[in-house]
Amino acid sequence: MLTLEQFEAGVRAGDRAVLGRAISLVESSSPAHQALAGQLLARLMPQTGLSIRVGITGVPGAGKSTLIEKLGTYLTSEEGGAHRVAVLAVDPSSDVTGGSILGDRTRMSKLSADPRAFIRPSPSGGTLGGVARRTRETILVCEAAGYDVVLVETVGVGQSESAVAGMTDVFLAVMLAGAGDDLQGIKRGILEHVDVIAVNKADGGNESRAQIAAREYEMALRMVSARAGEGKPTARTCSALTGAGVREVWADVEGRSSEMRRSGRLDEKRREQNQSWLEELVRERLEHLIRESAGASAALEEARERVRHGHARPTAEADRVIEALKAGLAARGAGAPDMGRVAQP
Amino acid sequence: MLTLEQFEAGVRAGDRAVLGRAISLVESSSPAHQALAGQLLARLMPQTGLSIRVGITGVPGAGKSTLIEKLGTYLTSEEGGAHRVAVLAVDPSSDVTGGSILGDRTRMSKLSADPRAFIRPSPSGGTLGGVARRTRETILVCEAAGYDVVLVETVGVGQSESAVAGMTDVFLAVMLAGAGDDLQGIKRGILEHVDVIAVNKADGGNESRAQIAAREYEMALRMVSARAGEGKPTARTCSALTGAGVREVWADVEGRSSEMRRSGRLDEKRREQNQSWLEELVRERLEHLIRESAGASAALEEARERVRHGHARPTAEADRVIEALKAGLAARGAGAPDMGRVAQP
Repeated sequence: MLTLEQFEAGVRAGDRAVLGRAISLVESSSPAHQALAGQLLARLMPQTGLSIRVGITGVPGAGKSTLIEKLGTYLTSEEGGAHRVAVLAVDPSSDVTGGSILGDRTRMSKLSADPRAFIRPSPSGGTLGGVARRTRETILVCEAAGYDVVLVETVGVGQSESAVAGMTDVFLAVMLAGAGDDLQGIKRGILEHVDVIAVNKADGGNESRAQIAAREYEMALRMVSARAGEGKPTARTCSALTGAGVREVWADVEGRSSEMRRSGRLDEKRREQNQSWLEELVRERLEHLIRESAGASAALEEARERVRHGHARPTAEADRVIEALKAGLAARGAGAPDMGRVAQP
Repeated sequence: MLTLEQFEAGVRAGDRAVLGRAISLVESSSPAHQALAGQLLARLMPQTGLSIRVGITGVPGAGKSTLIEKLGTYLTSEEGGAHRVAVLAVDPSSDVTGGSILGDRTRMSKLSADPRAFIRPSPSGGTLGGVARRTRETILVCEAAGYDVVLVETVGVGQSESAVAGMTDVFLAVMLAGAGDDLQGIKRGILEHVDVIAVNKADGGNESRAQIAAREYEMALRMVSARAGEGKPTARTCSALTGAGVREVWADVEGRSSEMRRSGRLDEKRREQNQSWLEELVRERLEHLIRESAGASAALEEARERVRHGHARPTAEADRVIEALKAGLAARGAGAPDMGRVAQP
């Protein structure tokens, strides 16, 4: 194990091996590692916050990885600004033995060989809350290591988009020109987070359909996601295959970021994100208290069953859960053997 | 105070005076009242669930109250189905001495004099969570009293729309034909809840603008809020002034309700709402544990300050809050004087 000083110096120097180990430290659930990670993050804080943080989501099959590969290699090129680009993923469905690492490396073979890029697959398993927390802190570590563009890809399903939108400055959705009158299954509640849409696969004769889709998306976006001080949301076509439009997509992202910086909205947004994060962490840890207490866990399970099947009133059921929790915590304080404690799943 | 039996019999008989007192009981925060309300609700449960529950929101100035008045009087008429209509409101911003009661009665003078209608203003003050909880239970009491249409109006700002969408079957938004390319300030995240849009004030030469707006809204709606088994969301024009289109708006609402009933989606939706409500109540009561503990409250306030102003890490701050809470609850169990308990605001 490296010392705190070695971690700090290595990350600051942009040493990729140390960076990788520092992220593993942040991701570790061992209390000793968590304590060290906490100290490391406290030291790195002054060097954080300087990147453009971009969340990226997309419908399945939209070519998100190919676009990230193309966008990333453009950004690290001299022409694209010689940025240093970190690519992170939030995927609560991945697990330790999953193919995520190989997957990312294969999907982004050029970018993963790029010395100015750093690709980190999703932390293994766990709840969305846990994965998202670790990704938030991984962003900070990457920034301290000098990465000035951080792309955070949502891989999983469900609420990972909201989680990623809550930790990034600009949220990009990769879409396709498709049939039907809905946003091709883009999840409800996601559109409101989206700042920039890239309609991919505008190539091989598909250009005009993509153009039409982009116009429709742009209209829909402006209806639901206009915010003060952030500029208008945009949608445009691109082709991750040919590279056409990719730099324009980036110009949209960067334009939005600059506008937010200028208007003071970026600082405000990040402060709000940190405040929400704090509230979310407190809620998570409160819910954890129930999981730690056998009595309260059992009461909650029973309450869920009763509400699911019958006519049990949620209010009365919730009261019972809390009473069980209080009894368990008070018993611990009274020095009783900790019957309420069960192993974490 | 009436006895439990008197409350039960009076509500079942549809006695308006007893109904009003039963709702006051549900809204009361006195522990004795809450206990009695719990027993009453348990007894009334078999008679609940039989109404069409409609949430109603609208942009300011859209004429929501006028439309509710028109819609309500149509519904209680023989032609409209001779329904019994309860109108409730969720307004976390109202307070005890506020003009809410007079306001509602004035705004809906014809409906409030209608023997088939029952108008109940928003419960006084409190958090959204508290107001919403009481409104959920008030819906049940009204159903037990034989009201087969319950209109729940959102009055306040912020998240009251989500709360109301989470306790109703069909969500109606009252809008205006307006300038600009956004949904006239309809809050982000609301559109996804909306099933039916009524573009009001389609009168006095404003009809064609309203028609255009309705078509645009319908397209936007279908992009973000299509759900399996619920039919397509709709938007149409109406005039609460002349009454034109009001019955068609109701036909949209009822059609959607029937479609959901047919597909089994209604039962499923209500079960999901009850499950979410349970989870929400448990979270609320967990957060309440912090407010009850002076040590944890102080730690949380401090954490918020530090995160707001500086570079404090939310993770470390959240840990401190939970430690303070555990210490407080354990001390209570140990028989220490309950220093951690403070008066509720």
